[in-house]
Amino acid sequence: MKIGFVIYEGMTALDFVGVFDPLTRLKTMGFMPELAWDVCAFAAGAVRDGAGLRIEPDKAGGSLEHYDMVVLPGGFGSRSLIHNGPFVDWIRSAAACPVKASVCTGALLLGAAGFLKGLPATTHPGAYELLRGYCAEVREDRVVDAGAVVTARGVTAAIDLGLYLGEKLAGPAAAGRIRGQMDYQG
Amino acid sequence: MKIGFVIYEGMTALDFVGVFDPLTRLKTMGFMPELAWDVCAFAAGAVRDGAGLRIEPDKAGGSLEHYDMVVLPGGFGSRSLIHNGPFVDWIRSAAACPVKASVCTGALLLGAAGFLKGLPATTHPGAYELLRGYCAEVREDRVVDAGAVVTARGVTAAIDLGLYLGEKLAGPAAAGRIRGQMDYQG
Repeated sequence: MKIGFVIYEGMTALDFVGVFDPLTRLKTMGFMPELAWDVCAFAAGAVRDGAGLRIEPDKAGGSLEHYDMVVLPGGFGSRSLIHNGPFVDWIRSAAACPVKASVCTGALLLGAAGFLKGLPATTHPGAYELLRGYCAEVREDRVVDAGAVVTARGVTAAIDLGLYLGEKLAGPAAAGRIRGQMDYQG
Repeated sequence: MKIGFVIYEGMTALDFVGVFDPLTRLKTMGFMPELAWDVCAFAAGAVRDGAGLRIEPDKAGGSLEHYDMVVLPGGFGSRSLIHNGPFVDWIRSAAACPVKASVCTGALLLGAAGFLKGLPATTHPGAYELLRGYCAEVREDRVVDAGAVVTARGVTAAIDLGLYLGEKLAGPAAAGRIRGQMDYQG
């Protein structure tokens, strides 16, 4: 089981780290010792989030097709990236991944890649209108599970998504212990 | 107003980013255009969090005394750093900062620096016993405001701390709008 965490210039770091924390605890807390992951960027070098925080990727470019799950954060950077052909093509290389997940406006990137066609999805409430063009139905739930695509609402919903996906991968007991270790009260 | 966000090897990235997000929104959403910050590490080069995520600091070493607020994350790295004299001396250089804040076991670092003497404080529930040696009283509240020192509980309490400090700096209307933009439901 290998996860690809996508990062990009202008993302919201909390959208990414909020999912990264609970999912990587599946390994660091011993529930899935075999779990592996890469932090993936389209190009080499540190990525700056919307507030200038610099995060280093493990991988730059290359196809995303070999991951069992890819996770995309949102952020204002997504608003221009949906019109960036080479970047959207790179996201589209995840087509065969069994689970493609997003937080916040990361859903717009999944939409631009064509992954939301005919499916229900959610995003940041400020981006519902934009999302409507890409999916069958915009839902206001915290996490919307459409099988191959799982989308979450705004920023802090990253944590809910991480716990939800953690439960899918390792069951409710593991997710409950991770929730406790994260001191989560949501 | 300048904030120093301390990062270190073995920290929990979500402890840091959970505070960084709401506090930096004070600037990016226009409430405090003059707000500035540095991501501060003891030494040069990227810092790896407990799950291997690499974050680049803006500043390496140097005194922390000129910041109006310093914020320390927790993480398993803190358990050894409380015994690391040069690192604790570096944290102690923040003595004159008007507000010193921590998430999770970051409170142990504030304690090792002597900042919690005679004060109430909190930390991750798993570290209450360790914290007792450093402070006057361990509280189980989500955020404990002792004036010069503000401590928060485990990992996800980072977001509560960031919203709390945001309200202290810019008032409840600004904090409410930030909470909404973060889609926070805690």
